Amino acid sequence: MTSTEPSIDLNADLGEGFGAWRLGDDEALLDVVTSANVACGFHAGDPSTMHRVCRAAAARGVAIGAQVGYRDLAGFGRRRIDYEPGELRDDVLYQIGALEAFCRAAGDRVRYVKPHGALYNTAATDPAQAGAVVAAVLAYDPRLPVLCQPGSVLFERAVAAGLTAVGEGFADRGYRPDGRLVPRSQPGALVHEPAAVVERATRMAAGGEVVATDGQVVACPVRSICVHGDTPGAVELARAVRAGLEAAALRVRPFLP
Amino acid sequence: MTSTEPSIDLNADLGEGFGAWRLGDDEALLDVVTSANVACGFHAGDPSTMHRVCRAAAARGVAIGAQVGYRDLAGFGRRRIDYEPGELRDDVLYQIGALEAFCRAAGDRVRYVKPHGALYNTAATDPAQAGAVVAAVLAYDPRLPVLCQPGSVLFERAVAAGLTAVGEGFADRGYRPDGRLVPRSQPGALVHEPAAVVERATRMAAGGEVVATDGQVVACPVRSICVHGDTPGAVELARAVRAGLEAAALRVRPFLP
Amino acid sequence: MTSTEPSIDLNADLGEGFGAWRLGDDEALLDVVTSANVACGFHAGDPSTMHRVCRAAAARGVAIGAQVGYRDLAGFGRRRIDYEPGELRDDVLYQIGALEAFCRAAGDRVRYVKPHGALYNTAATDPAQAGAVVAAVLAYDPRLPVLCQPGSVLFERAVAAGLTAVGEGFADRGYRPDGRLVPRSQPGALVHEPAAVVERATRMAAGGEVVATDGQVVACPVRSICVHGDTPGAVELARAVRAGLEAAALRVRPFLP
Amino acid sequence: MTSTEPSIDLNADLGEGFGAWRLGDDEALLDVVTSANVACGFHAGDPSTMHRVCRAAAARGVAIGAQVGYRDLAGFGRRRIDYEPGELRDDVLYQIGALEAFCRAAGDRVRYVKPHGALYNTAATDPAQAGAVVAAVLAYDPRLPVLCQPGSVLFERAVAAGLTAVGEGFADRGYRPDGRLVPRSQPGALVHEPAAVVERATRMAAGGEVVATDGQVVACPVRSICVHGDTPGAVELARAVRAGLEAAALRVRPFLP
Repeated sequence: MTSTEPSIDLNADLGEGFGAWRLGDDEALLDVVTSANVACGFHAGDPSTMHRVCRAAAARGVAIGAQVGYRDLAGFGRRRIDYEPGELRDDVLYQIGALEAFCRAAGDRVRYVKPHGALYNTAATDPAQAGAVVAAVLAYDPRLPVLCQPGSVLFERAVAAGLTAVGEGFADRGYRPDGRLVPRSQPGALVHEPAAVVERATRMAAGGEVVATDGQVVACPVRSICVHGDTPGAVELARAVRAGLEAAALRVRPFLP
Repeated sequence: MTSTEPSIDLNADLGEGFGAWRLGDDEALLDVVTSANVACGFHAGDPSTMHRVCRAAAARGVAIGAQVGYRDLAGFGRRRIDYEPGELRDDVLYQIGALEAFCRAAGDRVRYVKPHGALYNTAATDPAQAGAVVAAVLAYDPRLPVLCQPGSVLFERAVAAGLTAVGEGFADRGYRPDGRLVPRSQPGALVHEPAAVVERATRMAAGGEVVATDGQVVACPVRSICVHGDTPGAVELARAVRAGLEAAALRVRPFLP
Repeated sequence: MTSTEPSIDLNADLGEGFGAWRLGDDEALLDVVTSANVACGFHAGDPSTMHRVCRAAAARGVAIGAQVGYRDLAGFGRRRIDYEPGELRDDVLYQIGALEAFCRAAGDRVRYVKPHGALYNTAATDPAQAGAVVAAVLAYDPRLPVLCQPGSVLFERAVAAGLTAVGEGFADRGYRPDGRLVPRSQPGALVHEPAAVVERATRMAAGGEVVATDGQVVACPVRSICVHGDTPGAVELARAVRAGLEAAALRVRPFLP
Repeated sequence: MTSTEPSIDLNADLGEGFGAWRLGDDEALLDVVTSANVACGFHAGDPSTMHRVCRAAAARGVAIGAQVGYRDLAGFGRRRIDYEPGELRDDVLYQIGALEAFCRAAGDRVRYVKPHGALYNTAATDPAQAGAVVAAVLAYDPRLPVLCQPGSVLFERAVAAGLTAVGEGFADRGYRPDGRLVPRSQPGALVHEPAAVVERATRMAAGGEVVATDGQVVACPVRSICVHGDTPGAVELARAVRAGLEAAALRVRPFLP
């Protein structure tokens, strides 16, 4: 619990099923991660799934964050939507509040907010959508941190508004020399080799840096590592990442005290 | 503010538009009623409408309640759905939490819960659905009152679970000798004459009784009168009811202290 | 192609994913069945899934049917909804038409209609909902057969209205002595032993009878056997049923000439 | 019915309510226009509304077109969504097919396709989305005309693909010297004066030209004039436009023979 001990958070998207449809193995991932980005019903997640995941997360001491997305179940929140900022703010507020109900029922509360999919990507570069997310958090609870990419517009807007922005890294994604992710449509977007993913996670967490696609070492100041749960072998990879971090003498725990 | 002064609450369904679609005149009704049953997005109500109505209600000191309904936008929550109780509880929890976010943004909080439409009717007679509503309120905040019909299964279940149940009356609906409403499909379901509506409201509020369709005087122990907002002349009728109550020396105020 | 040769149809629910969510292995099942009940977007199924499944079915000569359901994605169409008959008729019409577009794009057309889930069960006993399904088919194309349970209200209403009703049997479900299915909540609802399922399918198809839970042999006049695709081992079981039917000298082909 | 007689079509968006919510006066507009762009359920329009409007249109000899939009009820199809082209094609196909069912039930058929809202605007400039709309029409029925703006990317793509593109004009909108509409966010976007609207409609229809905001006369080769139905006074204005066209010896009839 001492703040001098180096620590890192592991986060993953959870509760991304809907009704009869499941996605990923929530329970298995909850045994690995320390922060759960719980889908809130707009791009994925139904109330009973939210209830179940919040209960399971709270029971394990996993921090619960609102994984807020566009209102787009059919597109899983992966298609950019040109929202009016006020409507986007309200959609985000709605989702945070909805998740809070299940946190409360589980004796817990929402600990942070992380945008999902196309909202994550858009808010990383678009001031209007970033501002809408920030406005929602300000209106709901200015003490709630926003989990996002270091250097993104959302990160900067959150800080400028007095919010806590928490940087996260992606150990299985390629980085460009400017510190941004390689788009999924381009070669080098994904790091497939498990050992390399573990090594990158450890270096991000311990050293705050990552090797870019051109070989340069780039700053990557993160307090959380995002692992994925919806691909084959995802849970095993997440376990390996966690083991690697612990082997590097990092304490794996939620980014919040 | 003294509790000895006789008082009555006036409630109405509000925020029942969705996106581009409006229903009723929220602002006009908010100047008349003392409690606003705000739709929470499942049968009606979108986040921006919820935000707007909560802000307007809070500004006027109107108490905000969660008008929770089935997940059925196309049916406006008016079609009975055979939910599993756990799923219904979670849908209700979700809606309360979502509304809370806008109350919080408006510096207020959710003050009560009232089911809508087919959920209202079903929970009045069906123990499973009544129990699901009660379970949601218990899980969210056991201090939240449930606004419903006196004598209904929901009323009784709420009381048995330790919740506060607040009885409401319908001044423009016919009552059967057993104290239940005349179904809308039958003659005598509606009281059309404004003067009669005002008279019935006053008698319910001041005397706790109503004249049934057969002429009998029936107990109708209510702390709130429900007025409607989505029909032509509705706002005028609501104003007349309020004026009638005040002329009878009743203080019109939220049912909560 | 001679009508004297004994034949039987095998049908299965297909295309029941939605957006990012998949359910069952559509392609594998399409290699086994002769009729595909394609979900039409109200309880499951999105346009691109419908397009993909229709193309794959048409390429294999599998007959495409409209698997119509309640408007209830969150409940997967498994919760009874008290529709107005006119609204239900229109929801069914809408779904048939939507599927037709993908059949047309695949050079094919909708060959039959089969209700899904709670609509299937409700229309089996409720004259209003059965009548709504019949009215939709009559309005769309009176030559379209309705696939349903022999002896059900829907079967009878369809026949009375001049439609073709095609009876189907469930080889993996227990039957009561009155020819109805044992409800899923009761013991004996499911037949788990693959060999028994195959034997029952063959007896239904070849002899038009099934052994009920009390040992009685009951009439089960079916032209199609329904196999399931969304459980572990389902595809293998479907293959075994097909092999058993063929071993019994039954030609497995769509129920339509 | 002779093709030498000058004629013009009047089209309007219809059936844009959803469930309990109404928008505009469908019946009144159907007495004025000759083509009805019927919403198909994705941005507006529910099956029973579609059924009702198709029946009323068919009874009056008004041509029924599929008003296809993004899947976005909450945003009324007015927010641009970055669809994958294949998904957009499938969403458009789905909507055309769904509407066809109600045309068929009314003894009629879908006569044309017109995109709605943000899809209309995006397909006017974006080749991918324009191509998706064209692909849907090609897959459904290459004889179906596409109603859109002359000079738009959609118009050109449709023609290049061998479809019939029908140009439409907006008598109540300001035009720039390049023939494009003045965006709604800019001054001069709307023409408010009824007499001016009527005059512009007549000039477009009879002379194929319009006066741009800078006073230049610009080519505006249209076969249909779009009138709006969802604003106060809209029906009266539509009637005035029709009377003006008829007074100019133009026959007002569907653009299709």
